[in-house]
Amino acid sequence: MNKSPEARRKKLLEIIEKNPFLTDEQLAATLGVSVQTIRLDRMILAIPEQRERIEMMAQRAYQNLTSLAKEDIIGRLLLLEPGEKAASMLEITPEMCFKDGNIARGHFLFAQANSLAVALCPGKNVLTGIARVSFKKPAYLGQKVIATAVVRVKKQNKYYIKVVGNVENEIVYVGRFVVFKISREG
Amino acid sequence: MNKSPEARRKKLLEIIEKNPFLTDEQLAATLGVSVQTIRLDRMILAIPEQRERIEMMAQRAYQNLTSLAKEDIIGRLLLLEPGEKAASMLEITPEMCFKDGNIARGHFLFAQANSLAVALCPGKNVLTGIARVSFKKPAYLGQKVIATAVVRVKKQNKYYIKVVGNVENEIVYVGRFVVFKISREG
Repeated sequence: MNKSPEARRKKLLEIIEKNPFLTDEQLAATLGVSVQTIRLDRMILAIPEQRERIEMMAQRAYQNLTSLAKEDIIGRLLLLEPGEKAASMLEITPEMCFKDGNIARGHFLFAQANSLAVALCPGKNVLTGIARVSFKKPAYLGQKVIATAVVRVKKQNKYYIKVVGNVENEIVYVGRFVVFKISREG
Repeated sequence: MNKSPEARRKKLLEIIEKNPFLTDEQLAATLGVSVQTIRLDRMILAIPEQRERIEMMAQRAYQNLTSLAKEDIIGRLLLLEPGEKAASMLEITPEMCFKDGNIARGHFLFAQANSLAVALCPGKNVLTGIARVSFKKPAYLGQKVIATAVVRVKKQNKYYIKVVGNVENEIVYVGRFVVFKISREG
């Protein structure tokens, strides 16, 4: 790309605002420049590196959590705008894998998606009504699964939520959840 | 009921064969006699009590398991006829509940149903493709969730399985799973 440094930095800002999870390597590949150039641009623009960006987002995200205890989120919450959208990251550890292999067991991915869907619903006493998860590819030991969730429809006390799990921009699962608030039960 | 003892015992045998998970109290209620009568009838028929029946079934069930390690079953396997039907029991413990309450978290129920569906598929390298679970009622701390799974359709390497989770004859969830055998990947 033959962009001027100013144009490139403007584009870099836009890309990071849209997807703050991209590493310098991914940003370099996207903009067709070297990793060194990206690092320099970030310094000039005062944009922290991906790890710090994620940490800052996580701190804000947990402050918005009302429907679950912090410990009830499976994975690390990265973004939470209640009633709108949310994201989390789950690193696949040995305990999450089948005993005889390095493939993550479905219920851990389900747990990531389900807890993110519940987190998206503001308030207390939120439960899952229906969950439909399609597992597209296995997730393996050591991989980081980024789940992004959006509220598609809100009807009375029900939220219809879509959650997509990605590993390095490849979809590993797609989930659709109906979560709802109960009035009485604890 | 005014059945002769012989007719009652014949009926008792039939009921237990159909549902070995019923307690003496439940059998007594079903047949309209006292718990003492049920116990006497069981002695005469040499039918062990419910706890022992479940233990005997579990021992047989685990011998039929090929697609998962024993530890990968969530809950206790009670019945396994590969390619046909299966059952398991999951007792809800505090770790399975939301931090702020005594309701079981959805992903533990999902894990029971999902591992039972995978167990039903004979062979190795079995994964879940699609899962749809409808949560009907919450399951609470201390409750025992009995899941029963049946293969509805088998097409090439795919199994379509229905799993129903019950607590004391009330449905807590209904799940539909498509599980499949992969040829290569470990």
